[in-house]
Amino acid sequence: MLLERCLIQSVGFRNVYQDGRATGFQFRVRMPSYRGMAASLIDGISVSVGNLVSVGPEVPLWDFDGGTYTLEQLWSSEGLRWPLEEAAVVTVPLDGGLPPGVHEVSIELRLRMSYIPLIHQPSVFRETRMVTLVPQDGGGQFKYGVSLYSFMGDYGTDMDLETALAAISDIGATGVEILGEGHIPGYPNPSTAFIDRWFGLMERYSLELTNYGSWIDTRLHPGRGMTEQEGALALQRDLKLAHQLGFKFLRPKIGVVSDDLIPDPIWQGAVERSLDLAHDLEIIICPEIHSPTPINHPVVQDYVNLIERTGTENFGLLIDTGIFQDRPIPLREGESRETRPAFLDGIGVDPGDFAGIAEYVVFIQAKFHDINDQLEDQQIPWAPVINALQNAGYRGYLSSEYEGERTAGRAIEQIRRQHALLRGIAAGSESTTNQKEESHA
Amino acid sequence: MLLERCLIQSVGFRNVYQDGRATGFQFRVRMPSYRGMAASLIDGISVSVGNLVSVGPEVPLWDFDGGTYTLEQLWSSEGLRWPLEEAAVVTVPLDGGLPPGVHEVSIELRLRMSYIPLIHQPSVFRETRMVTLVPQDGGGQFKYGVSLYSFMGDYGTDMDLETALAAISDIGATGVEILGEGHIPGYPNPSTAFIDRWFGLMERYSLELTNYGSWIDTRLHPGRGMTEQEGALALQRDLKLAHQLGFKFLRPKIGVVSDDLIPDPIWQGAVERSLDLAHDLEIIICPEIHSPTPINHPVVQDYVNLIERTGTENFGLLIDTGIFQDRPIPLREGESRETRPAFLDGIGVDPGDFAGIAEYVVFIQAKFHDINDQLEDQQIPWAPVINALQNAGYRGYLSSEYEGERTAGRAIEQIRRQHALLRGIAAGSESTTNQKEESHA
Repeated sequence: MLLERCLIQSVGFRNVYQDGRATGFQFRVRMPSYRGMAASLIDGISVSVGNLVSVGPEVPLWDFDGGTYTLEQLWSSEGLRWPLEEAAVVTVPLDGGLPPGVHEVSIELRLRMSYIPLIHQPSVFRETRMVTLVPQDGGGQFKYGVSLYSFMGDYGTDMDLETALAAISDIGATGVEILGEGHIPGYPNPSTAFIDRWFGLMERYSLELTNYGSWIDTRLHPGRGMTEQEGALALQRDLKLAHQLGFKFLRPKIGVVSDDLIPDPIWQGAVERSLDLAHDLEIIICPEIHSPTPINHPVVQDYVNLIERTGTENFGLLIDTGIFQDRPIPLREGESRETRPAFLDGIGVDPGDFAGIAEYVVFIQAKFHDINDQLEDQQIPWAPVINALQNAGYRGYLSSEYEGERTAGRAIEQIRRQHALLRGIAAGSESTTNQKEESHA
Repeated sequence: MLLERCLIQSVGFRNVYQDGRATGFQFRVRMPSYRGMAASLIDGISVSVGNLVSVGPEVPLWDFDGGTYTLEQLWSSEGLRWPLEEAAVVTVPLDGGLPPGVHEVSIELRLRMSYIPLIHQPSVFRETRMVTLVPQDGGGQFKYGVSLYSFMGDYGTDMDLETALAAISDIGATGVEILGEGHIPGYPNPSTAFIDRWFGLMERYSLELTNYGSWIDTRLHPGRGMTEQEGALALQRDLKLAHQLGFKFLRPKIGVVSDDLIPDPIWQGAVERSLDLAHDLEIIICPEIHSPTPINHPVVQDYVNLIERTGTENFGLLIDTGIFQDRPIPLREGESRETRPAFLDGIGVDPGDFAGIAEYVVFIQAKFHDINDQLEDQQIPWAPVINALQNAGYRGYLSSEYEGERTAGRAIEQIRRQHALLRGIAAGSESTTNQKEESHA
């Protein structure tokens, strides 16, 4: 388990409640020294949040080792410690708590160092950071999840599995999506020790497994393609592993044969040969509809035809919300609009098109790139998208796929913003929908 | 175990030998995709190192799963994988290998993605990074170690214990120094599971435990000091824990009572009450001589007096090489020379002073802040320092204490530079010393 590099941690920022009413907020702070220390060496922490609240160093309460303490109680404590490896939990009283959204939190933390001359004491550590408070409830008819894909670049370098799961659980999400070839050590043959730990972590963080991403690598060997039989074997290898690890959906990423992502024709045989196995394992195979492929496209129709023709309940559609992107992703350094794929400007599928395929959709990857401090998504028009999903009766997962800048630690905070944004829209537009229904009645 | 965030890893950069002669060099590369993949999907890697060598994508050899493969062999391989969680080892043939020091390494890595249109294939990943090749042997009469203090900011956020130990072992260092209150989870009562893992890791990476940093926190409770008895209890708590974890030296950081770091007078009683225990545990207690305290100072004389008076073999001096700093540490943002402690400009102790206390010195922390691309330390004059240590017959540890900018991942590379620099000087000046001795004979 690892901490965020900033002193103020995004994970753990929340309101606290008594008898159903918010009485304050709390957040976690990483020890700024190079060592842990006795809690009696803390000389307090000043906290301010935008223009909403500002308290002096003696006001916040501290949680250590299962107990809650005032600063004076810390001073007389014996044996109580702020370890280097564990963030302190700081609670600030505030009647009604903070509103959900992005807040500018500032701290001034004071610690007494015995080995520094008194003229330089106490040691003072200041930090200001934008962090997001996610409402833990509401969110309308959807289930909320996160794909570990979101942590690309962080995962395995700054973040380990448990740290990722703790961050997901912290925002009230209940579902975890993974990439088989990315997040299973020893793939395709994980150790039993890993599998035991896997289910132990899911239980500890109250998470269920949602979608498992796999590949049918049609370009596996230079100079030749893949047969249907080879494709089926690849798919079945992952179906078995996904089942072993508790997943209910499997997204095969299929090799393409054209510039507009027409899948290799072997996909159909590979899938059909695997439907019985998927049925036995209770997994739904769901290729993703991903930009630049829109909803109204022969590829999507082919997928629907397979469902209709076979009557299978083990094949469905996965929608990647990148298809609704209606504003461009900013050019990265050294990138030009002429050389990068045109779909990065957004293909702007009409969210209303969702209704036409809704009955086949089993999973949604909530792709996004950048949500600003005002909680405005810069690429995806979430209000009409959420509204379309609600109107079509979708009740499955919205599984965050952050795909923006890969700056260290940015994904955790961006995902919090997306969940605050989506839950807010879903709760709001659901009540609108309900009111409409009532007025119709 | 975590990887460095850059694709090109510092850890693992080394020459490879056949029959005692360097036949090339190798380094580790992190998978740039968001998933691991079959090794047959690799389309090669071009590598250049400054003006020394440049090879095309088909030349380097690849190590996976215990075997070494050409690119063509990868293409026809089945089941061989480049996992997301493990760096690939790339070997470039080069007669004579690379010289030790800092090198500009550039790569252009090509991977075939089945799901991307052929017009955008192969996917190409480019990176250039300065990385340091450390000579694995030589280094003169000293032993080489690293303090985990060096990784402040990284440790527990971007780096875990095993990652730190692997980085230390990779440069041929044999000793690990820690801070008890920083690097022992559950301090002061670590679990037996941790202790088992601790010794297992030391064995795996061929490392021994050197110095354990502890504190006598004389300002533990506001408004009162600490008694000799309380100081002795604190010291003995850490002596026992240091012994349990296999350490041979313990540095107590003692609270101070003046601006020039005069230790609280309780130090003497606290230490004397603990000498018998230290003797039983075979640990040498060694307070550090740390800037701004020079070698010729009453505090140092008091320590020496205790040794002389008691005849103990369980008390000695630890020298922090920051006392030899003869150029200023650059001002950090918002810092002014008037308000920061004057000793950050360097107190420039004459390395020749070391001879006067050499017989009492049991451990050296090789404090440093910044070593540039030309392998020049910007603050510590290593040539005269190393020469003074050699002339005085010091044969103990040089234990790296990196204390420079806390940019993520910088410490690993700076420590490699320091070890390359120190080993180079020590090997060179040792032969000078030997020649001198020979001409005297």
